[in-house]
Amino acid sequence: MGLTLLAPIGSALALLFAALLARKVLKAPEGTDLMKKISLAVRKGANAYLKRQYIGVILFFAVIFVVLMVLAFMGYLTMFVPFAFITGGFFSGLSGFIGMKIATAANARTANAARGSLNSGLRIAFSSGAVMGFVVVGLGLLDISFWYFFLKFWYSDPAHLAVAAGQTFQEAQIQAITSAMLTFGMGASSMALFARVGGGIFTKAADVGADLVGKVEVGIPEDDPRNPAVIADNVGDNVGDVAGMGADLYESYVGSIISTAALAVAAGFGFKGVTIPMVMASIGIIASIIGTFFVSTKEGATQKNLLFALRRGTWISGAIIAVAAFPLIYFGLGKENIGFFFAVLSGLLAGILIGITTEYYTSDTYRPTKKLSSTSLTGPATTIIGGLSLGMLSTVLPVVIVGISVLVSYTVSGGSGSIGDPSFNQGLYGVGLSAVGMLSTLGITLATDAYGPVADNAGGIAEMAGLGEEVRKRTDALDSLGNTTAATGKGFAIGSAALTALTLIASFIAEVQVIDPDFKFELSIINPPVLIGLFVGGVLPFLFAALTMDAVGRAAQSIVVEVRRQFKEIKGLMEGKADPDYAACVDICTKSAQKEMILPAIIAVVSPIVVGLLLGVNGICGMLAGATVSGFILAVMMANAGGAWDNAKKYIESGAHGGKGSDAHKAAVVGDTVGDPFKDTSGPSINILIKLLSMVSIVFAGVIMAFHLF
Amino acid sequence: MGLTLLAPIGSALALLFAALLARKVLKAPEGTDLMKKISLAVRKGANAYLKRQYIGVILFFAVIFVVLMVLAFMGYLTMFVPFAFITGGFFSGLSGFIGMKIATAANARTANAARGSLNSGLRIAFSSGAVMGFVVVGLGLLDISFWYFFLKFWYSDPAHLAVAAGQTFQEAQIQAITSAMLTFGMGASSMALFARVGGGIFTKAADVGADLVGKVEVGIPEDDPRNPAVIADNVGDNVGDVAGMGADLYESYVGSIISTAALAVAAGFGFKGVTIPMVMASIGIIASIIGTFFVSTKEGATQKNLLFALRRGTWISGAIIAVAAFPLIYFGLGKENIGFFFAVLSGLLAGILIGITTEYYTSDTYRPTKKLSSTSLTGPATTIIGGLSLGMLSTVLPVVIVGISVLVSYTVSGGSGSIGDPSFNQGLYGVGLSAVGMLSTLGITLATDAYGPVADNAGGIAEMAGLGEEVRKRTDALDSLGNTTAATGKGFAIGSAALTALTLIASFIAEVQVIDPDFKFELSIINPPVLIGLFVGGVLPFLFAALTMDAVGRAAQSIVVEVRRQFKEIKGLMEGKADPDYAACVDICTKSAQKEMILPAIIAVVSPIVVGLLLGVNGICGMLAGATVSGFILAVMMANAGGAWDNAKKYIESGAHGGKGSDAHKAAVVGDTVGDPFKDTSGPSINILIKLLSMVSIVFAGVIMAFHLF
Repeated sequence: MGLTLLAPIGSALALLFAALLARKVLKAPEGTDLMKKISLAVRKGANAYLKRQYIGVILFFAVIFVVLMVLAFMGYLTMFVPFAFITGGFFSGLSGFIGMKIATAANARTANAARGSLNSGLRIAFSSGAVMGFVVVGLGLLDISFWYFFLKFWYSDPAHLAVAAGQTFQEAQIQAITSAMLTFGMGASSMALFARVGGGIFTKAADVGADLVGKVEVGIPEDDPRNPAVIADNVGDNVGDVAGMGADLYESYVGSIISTAALAVAAGFGFKGVTIPMVMASIGIIASIIGTFFVSTKEGATQKNLLFALRRGTWISGAIIAVAAFPLIYFGLGKENIGFFFAVLSGLLAGILIGITTEYYTSDTYRPTKKLSSTSLTGPATTIIGGLSLGMLSTVLPVVIVGISVLVSYTVSGGSGSIGDPSFNQGLYGVGLSAVGMLSTLGITLATDAYGPVADNAGGIAEMAGLGEEVRKRTDALDSLGNTTAATGKGFAIGSAALTALTLIASFIAEVQVIDPDFKFELSIINPPVLIGLFVGGVLPFLFAALTMDAVGRAAQSIVVEVRRQFKEIKGLMEGKADPDYAACVDICTKSAQKEMILPAIIAVVSPIVVGLLLGVNGICGMLAGATVSGFILAVMMANAGGAWDNAKKYIESGAHGGKGSDAHKAAVVGDTVGDPFKDTSGPSINILIKLLSMVSIVFAGVIMAFHLF
Repeated sequence: MGLTLLAPIGSALALLFAALLARKVLKAPEGTDLMKKISLAVRKGANAYLKRQYIGVILFFAVIFVVLMVLAFMGYLTMFVPFAFITGGFFSGLSGFIGMKIATAANARTANAARGSLNSGLRIAFSSGAVMGFVVVGLGLLDISFWYFFLKFWYSDPAHLAVAAGQTFQEAQIQAITSAMLTFGMGASSMALFARVGGGIFTKAADVGADLVGKVEVGIPEDDPRNPAVIADNVGDNVGDVAGMGADLYESYVGSIISTAALAVAAGFGFKGVTIPMVMASIGIIASIIGTFFVSTKEGATQKNLLFALRRGTWISGAIIAVAAFPLIYFGLGKENIGFFFAVLSGLLAGILIGITTEYYTSDTYRPTKKLSSTSLTGPATTIIGGLSLGMLSTVLPVVIVGISVLVSYTVSGGSGSIGDPSFNQGLYGVGLSAVGMLSTLGITLATDAYGPVADNAGGIAEMAGLGEEVRKRTDALDSLGNTTAATGKGFAIGSAALTALTLIASFIAEVQVIDPDFKFELSIINPPVLIGLFVGGVLPFLFAALTMDAVGRAAQSIVVEVRRQFKEIKGLMEGKADPDYAACVDICTKSAQKEMILPAIIAVVSPIVVGLLLGVNGICGMLAGATVSGFILAVMMANAGGAWDNAKKYIESGAHGGKGSDAHKAAVVGDTVGDPFKDTSGPSINILIKLLSMVSIVFAGVIMAFHLF
């Protein structure tokens, strides 16, 4: 399969391109000494946080590694699993780490470039976002390629492989390869969970804490250097929105590819079936690289122009992928299987459509957010009711889009019959390919998304360094655009997580069949273990959301106390004569985030094991389906409500309904504050939850099948 | 089956007891002329609303009746269905109507009795609640008995019955009887939907509108007679919390009984299986009647004493049912089937446990609500985050309780195997019996619940009529207790709705098998139509909640405008020299409620038909399961968050965190306002939604099986 070599080639291209972009970004000057100083403080804070986080994560990984080793020795897992788990976690963490490194290096440079022109600012910010995008896809494909070639080599030795009755050697080989690969997804998911939850708590605790004392009590503007939490706030953008998002999407990316590959044997495609998703991903990388060259703008561009500049890149990449997927499927799977091409298309299209609906519900250029801003006229209560109802309403279209996409990709792929039938598995393989199709544009989609926090930081630096009206206006334009791309990015992340989670459920079933080909599934929704699994799975995202929201509340509270203390104890702080102790706030956020992420992580890892031991494999399937359905809906609701509140507030700040300082504005601030943990902590964490649940189930399938009550 | 006669006897006893209680209540004096005047105004308003609502409902029923007649002529339904549909709607509506009549008659009488002593007040309020409770169960069992005996007679003639191959005459007879009876559930559900949604919109629009202008803008106290919306607010308590709740639980009650009966043939129990749930219900009525005699209190009773006084009645009834169920199952189903007794017990217990968790999360005597009240110290944003997270967290235990109850009742009933196996159906029949067990205490449970709005109204009348400090304190004690019983009542309503909905899904499957015994189900959660059904079903409660919250917002807005107008245009109103135009506000609420309930009703009725035509029977099952899971969780979350916000506010008003008028109190009011549509409009409407979806699916099963895409 010479075609498979495209995977490491694609990976190398992505990493090379990322390196080139990084060099370009780092060559740009950082600006004045003050700017350098601020940027350094943010960088230091972010490093301190990540260092601390990695220590906690290493402990967690060590524990799980030992557990997996024990299980491997007991024969429930192959010996590769513990190591695959580690590499998945390592690369996921590395993606986030590199992305954050470049983002914290680019913030002052973006502000400085914006002193020249809007386009220079955009190019720097976008390039640094692109570094992260291409690092994620590059490392993802590297990890996949490494394990694929290594395991293929290892299992080519008949001594290493047990061939079941009625199975060809090749089938046994592919199954052994893909089921080992699946397990590194659990490492990636676990890492992503810590990054998302920890980063999410950090960023919102700092944000809310800084605002509550700074803006509300003391009355100084946002991003004012006198605020002791201002650096923590900027650090938070990087550790939450950049590192967290990177680890999250790394995981969706590899998850969709390997879970589709894992369905190859069941669908009857052999090695071809394993290769196709990997090659699709490589095509996506090349298309994304081409797309980046189309992102640029002119001075004086409107919000719409800027958005179009970013979108153009994504659309061009998508078009290239759509064209290239045809010959890939035609020659790769054979013309009788051309239906799978339409599965890829449906995934690509669904990704774009979910982005559009997200934009519709959260951007202040459309009716819903405008209407929401007018609910602020009657106070905070109506603002909250309006935002919640907007969020709930906004879940309908994404559900319909994902539903149609699943149905279309299943049907065009020849899906029919019931579980275990080859045609049924072909249909599921098609659903997997649609997830791969959706995520194939990830290089550039993530670039436009990770661009946001960089622009946000740049705005903060411009403010703190006193760069003047004109520059601030440019960074504001970039930042405001970042809010929209962040919202669509979140929609994309959630949509792809849902599709990936569905494919992972299919992989779990395939994995169970590998372990025990005679296992009889009773997955009927009316079968009590499945039904109860559905309920338990359905409630998990709510529990998760509650825990993470509470965590943000508690962490913000400790920041409030610290900021108040500094304003009281540091003489001359308000007059700008003394420097605040930024590091203390960063430290508190770091500690809180570390402490608060433990319980959610344990719940995510332990739930499937407990449910499995009590309700068996059928119960787990129910739980996974329930969690995917309710998690998808809740995550969309929280992300969109949060985004809409944020933009409704900005809309009022731009002069509507009395503008800044009016009662409507105060009500809108309440909405925005509620929305903060919605959109940046709880909502995105749910994405990971639904995938991690599947991953844990897959890894522990053997144990669960050996010991379970029902 | 002489035992079956217990059903009409139980029904007659309940109705007789209700009549006696009603006479007792009506004999009590109404108090001063002013009190009579106020009570009359509330009564007039409630009548006006119900009259208007019934006109709208009659139109809706006429349309559906015609549709059903057409389908019956085409052979997709039996000729009884359209008429059963009408009687179900009629009795459900009648339950609400009588309950409301007595409640509006009892409000001034309760206030007047409270002038004498706390116990006299409690007795009147509780008796009027009991009238409603026993009317609901009495009419429910009457409707069931009527159709059962009529249909049994009709189908005893072989000429009226088609016996399928491999079926005994008796089996065919039972199937024909139960599937006709199932369909009157759709009438009851539709009626309940209008009552809950319309009433819920009415009551919250009036409440929010009255508060926004009265308390906030003009600065007059709650229940002040100068507020033009004050009567509408009192009317709302009756049309929403009384009439709506009555219609809702009427529907759960008959739904659980007939859906369990519908599983009798499949479970292999024949006519015995049909009779048992009906007899269980009669036993419950007798036990509830006995229980009511244990509800009384002494002067100076604390909140805890009062609650205990009410609880004692429920617990005694539950104990009687538990004892009586044993011989019923032992002799009715045979000692080899004694396992079903434990199914009944598990349902009874689950109902009580859900009540307790609801109380834990919403009463200010426990930690969660106390903690919530302290979040108000940092403003409305943290209050909202705290309440939402409390609500989300509070969903976990009810889900676990329902899950365990389902698993226990399935297992002890000998459930095993897969769909279609007799043992599997026995298990489902056991789940049905647990729902019947839970609802068997309805007579008295509903009494303690419907008592709440009467006490609330009595407090309003005491305030408006100036009855003095001591009386107001007594009615306040009664009212405050009503808040707790309302919350636990809602928990009970949601829990029983979930169990009933699950039984209805089983009935839907049984109905499909009656229509086409060869139909092959593919209910695996990974089968795309089922999976998409799960997603669509999962999103429906969110859509419903969004629509109903928006509706309340719009309706409240129009009340605000009207109240402002009256304060401006009616000279001497503020000084108490001129009367406000109460009727205008009642009229606006009525019109808004009527207009706003159309869209949700259409969605509830049309969704299963559309999903069925697109995704077939399997898709419908997925949708029903998805809606039950997400609807149960969302309804619990909304009800508990709303209840906790309400009580957190009351806790602050009682002096905590600065008391009335403090900033914390203002923040708590925001929480309470958001909670209003949560707990009284959207949350309870979701209960009905999940049952109505099943009912519509059952009625339209034949059509869907004839025409569907997948």
